[in-house]
Amino acid sequence: MASESLSSEAGITYRMMMLAIQLGIILLTAKLGNFLAEKAGLPGVLGEVAAGILIGPYLLGSFALPGFPGGILPLHDGFPISPELYGICSLAAIVLLFMVGLETDLKLFLRYSLVGSFVGLGGVIVSFVLGDLLAMVFSKTLFGTALGFFSPPCLFLGIMSTATSVGITARILSERQKLDSPEGVTILAGAVIDDVLGIIMLAIGLGLISASSTTGKVDWLDIGIIAGKAIGIWLSATVLGILASRKISIVLKWFGSRSSMAVVALGLALILAGLFEKAGLAMIIGAYVMGLSLTKTDINHVIRENLEPIFHLLVPVFFTVMGMLVNVRLFFSVKVLLFGLLYTVVAMLAKIVGGGLPSLLCNFNMRGAMRIGLGMLPRGEVALIIAGIGLSAGLLPPNVFGVGVLMTLLTTLAAPPLLVLIFNNPASGLRRHTEKQTKADLSFTFSSYRTAELVVGNLLKLFEFKGFYVHVLDHREHIYHARKDDIVIGFQQKRNVIEFDCDAKEILLINSAMYKVLAELKQTVQELIKPVDGKAAAE
Amino acid sequence: MASESLSSEAGITYRMMMLAIQLGIILLTAKLGNFLAEKAGLPGVLGEVAAGILIGPYLLGSFALPGFPGGILPLHDGFPISPELYGICSLAAIVLLFMVGLETDLKLFLRYSLVGSFVGLGGVIVSFVLGDLLAMVFSKTLFGTALGFFSPPCLFLGIMSTATSVGITARILSERQKLDSPEGVTILAGAVIDDVLGIIMLAIGLGLISASSTTGKVDWLDIGIIAGKAIGIWLSATVLGILASRKISIVLKWFGSRSSMAVVALGLALILAGLFEKAGLAMIIGAYVMGLSLTKTDINHVIRENLEPIFHLLVPVFFTVMGMLVNVRLFFSVKVLLFGLLYTVVAMLAKIVGGGLPSLLCNFNMRGAMRIGLGMLPRGEVALIIAGIGLSAGLLPPNVFGVGVLMTLLTTLAAPPLLVLIFNNPASGLRRHTEKQTKADLSFTFSSYRTAELVVGNLLKLFEFKGFYVHVLDHREHIYHARKDDIVIGFQQKRNVIEFDCDAKEILLINSAMYKVLAELKQTVQELIKPVDGKAAAE
Repeated sequence: MASESLSSEAGITYRMMMLAIQLGIILLTAKLGNFLAEKAGLPGVLGEVAAGILIGPYLLGSFALPGFPGGILPLHDGFPISPELYGICSLAAIVLLFMVGLETDLKLFLRYSLVGSFVGLGGVIVSFVLGDLLAMVFSKTLFGTALGFFSPPCLFLGIMSTATSVGITARILSERQKLDSPEGVTILAGAVIDDVLGIIMLAIGLGLISASSTTGKVDWLDIGIIAGKAIGIWLSATVLGILASRKISIVLKWFGSRSSMAVVALGLALILAGLFEKAGLAMIIGAYVMGLSLTKTDINHVIRENLEPIFHLLVPVFFTVMGMLVNVRLFFSVKVLLFGLLYTVVAMLAKIVGGGLPSLLCNFNMRGAMRIGLGMLPRGEVALIIAGIGLSAGLLPPNVFGVGVLMTLLTTLAAPPLLVLIFNNPASGLRRHTEKQTKADLSFTFSSYRTAELVVGNLLKLFEFKGFYVHVLDHREHIYHARKDDIVIGFQQKRNVIEFDCDAKEILLINSAMYKVLAELKQTVQELIKPVDGKAAAE
Repeated sequence: MASESLSSEAGITYRMMMLAIQLGIILLTAKLGNFLAEKAGLPGVLGEVAAGILIGPYLLGSFALPGFPGGILPLHDGFPISPELYGICSLAAIVLLFMVGLETDLKLFLRYSLVGSFVGLGGVIVSFVLGDLLAMVFSKTLFGTALGFFSPPCLFLGIMSTATSVGITARILSERQKLDSPEGVTILAGAVIDDVLGIIMLAIGLGLISASSTTGKVDWLDIGIIAGKAIGIWLSATVLGILASRKISIVLKWFGSRSSMAVVALGLALILAGLFEKAGLAMIIGAYVMGLSLTKTDINHVIRENLEPIFHLLVPVFFTVMGMLVNVRLFFSVKVLLFGLLYTVVAMLAKIVGGGLPSLLCNFNMRGAMRIGLGMLPRGEVALIIAGIGLSAGLLPPNVFGVGVLMTLLTTLAAPPLLVLIFNNPASGLRRHTEKQTKADLSFTFSSYRTAELVVGNLLKLFEFKGFYVHVLDHREHIYHARKDDIVIGFQQKRNVIEFDCDAKEILLINSAMYKVLAELKQTVQELIKPVDGKAAAE
């Protein structure tokens, strides 16, 4: 491949053919991996990453097949995938972080969850420091040379372990109806702050890396300046974005059709992502900031709704490609494997300590603190994106990238059984008991998936309109969380059923909200039936 | 760029940054171009291609900007776009043809439109022969050497002019409520056959090209064998696909969620596309065959619904990238420009003659035949995809590629005013008058876009269930066509309004269909309200 020029006759046609087959196989194996993992009671995302490792260039991908002497997914000039496939993967990362941004309502969030903020902050700081320190201690073994705390590989291993992926915890809490428990609320709030802090940590880390690569050393003053600059850029871009958001939404509305609005918004996110990268920050930071800016606009829902199927197409590609980037052969080295396991254990302890300690200070007992810490364990897409940035920029050697993926997989694998175990104990996690919760078992069955989807959409809008802080916990499993003052309502759409997870005293509120949504639907139907009688008129 | 290796540190990160900015700018300018064109009363797709020409590497794209000394959309090793951007464009072409295939119901179609088949066939044959002949006659001027009828460039210029793009005609017919006129029905039926024949012509053409490049000459026996082989491959793949379609749909249903089904189906289309390319045919043929195979399965609707937003994201990228591929500087050559105009005129005449003559033989008068011929004028995505294949495979020189794009633009530009002119005349296009049509003016207004969308979705399913042949005429403008025996119903969703275009005698049928759809909705709402009273129970 290396010798083929782009402009050569066979070149681009051949590459496009390979891309189509590769992408097709990735989609198929990703969905198959997801399916099999869930059948086995494991998080689906594990199946997607595992599928990627299996079909990647280091295992089956470079296996010679008839017509494909180099294999279907071979190495490209030493890089595990072709730039055109990596392009689709980058697009996926941008769509992902744009969606995360769109769903983050910081203002309402801060009003409702101080404890969550402390938990998130604690987890991030402890994870970063321990991850970086561990890399520093073992740098001689891993990199062949002793590295400092502020060396790029150590910084990356620190940053990678910061961001919690809340989807898996949310799914387990939803199954056990614990979304509205004090622990559940705190975990989910902590995860929001986690995203924000993870992004800021990445910005600071990249600043430190560029400083240390030019001057060789950084002192504490530099660090302060770099951190201030990164936070400053992030903050000012976000504030500017929020200030401009009304104008942006007016411009977007010019385009009339809903799909056009979403496409143009994504276009803006792509441009901002590129400009952030150009400015020495990462693309995902720009995409996240663009999303955050548009959160409070009235077209937020329209954009999210139209990006949903694009998300469902691209995200499995993202996880599978991350698996493909892992050179499993490097794990045959005992020291890499051992370091990977140690790094995973430290990453888990960091969240338990960093998330648990602040909880202990805020009316949770040891059990509650443990629950919260364990809920923050799983790492996911953000960790993988950060590892991918390190690998593709040449700042992380392939074996350290593999360590990062291993940690993501193992934390995701370890969290569910531990959470099930500790939440099965009915004892309270609070030190001073507040009024005992009476759990309500509320579910609504609809005639079709589509109707349930329509009701959920209208319900989310109604909650937001009523001043609730609404949070999408898991896109693929349709788990939602609405919060206002001391009211916490979790709900999940399972095919044509909507299941609520709430306190018994919230039943009235939910029923009246459902009534309102359904009354609106009913009125619509009534309005529909009128014109059928009236308007038909032959010319 | 050429000297940068893929595995080099800056390489892939830089390329991804450029891809994000390029894609963002493409989405923005595509939508802006579409918007401005439509404001000016022109087809939106013209705006998208024009935007591409403007921002492409031959005009603004290679303009130096601060931070981008080579411009934002520069040439890549002589090719107008980077492979990663072309990859997204190829994905768009595959999604497009997969959707076209999914929407083609050949069995029902053939039962209802013999005239349409003749019109389509006539238009394709005359366009192909005239286009190829013209290229042959001018080959000395264009290519510097005299070429035969079966030389690759001549074949490409023939094939390019075959496929009608029905979207623009459908929009104009819908506006003037002529979707159900005898001419309208014939045009729309002809366009379906056009797609199939265009795909088969491309398969034959690629066979001829590979034969003539190995042996240098082809005789009539070769042509027969090649054509037979191409049709054979196409037909057997389609038949095999249809036979396997039930099994495929059972497998797809394993995946449970609707979005997973659509993603896996697209994965299969991608793999088949790649394999067709590998076998010497084009990728779009494989994608089309996969779509055609799944038409009659019950998950057809699910797949189409979930691919819609992906289509809305990718298709503007496709048209804009096609514009970017055009080297406008080549049009400064008078002979290229003159040939382009001549080629366009011949392509127009070919459809008028080739589509009009069979109409004259089938109860249409001169006016009717002219209307049908003009309705088949506009060329679109398929012509551009074929031209793109020729360019990227090195079979078409850049100036001839430009001629193809020019023809697409001009036919698309010329059709609307001509059609408006000839359809404004209220006189009948039939020779023997059948019973006079009484036009009905039927429209239903709903409370929101989403409700109207839901009703349209259910209505389409109901029509199909009742044995109607349902055809999506224009995705972006939501124009539909349902046909059964002598009943023809056109309808369009305009934001929250559904407008019908039909004969007065069809009002009863439409009203009862709408009643049925609304009654189902009403029952759903009733079912919804029950559980709100009943199911709530505190534990």
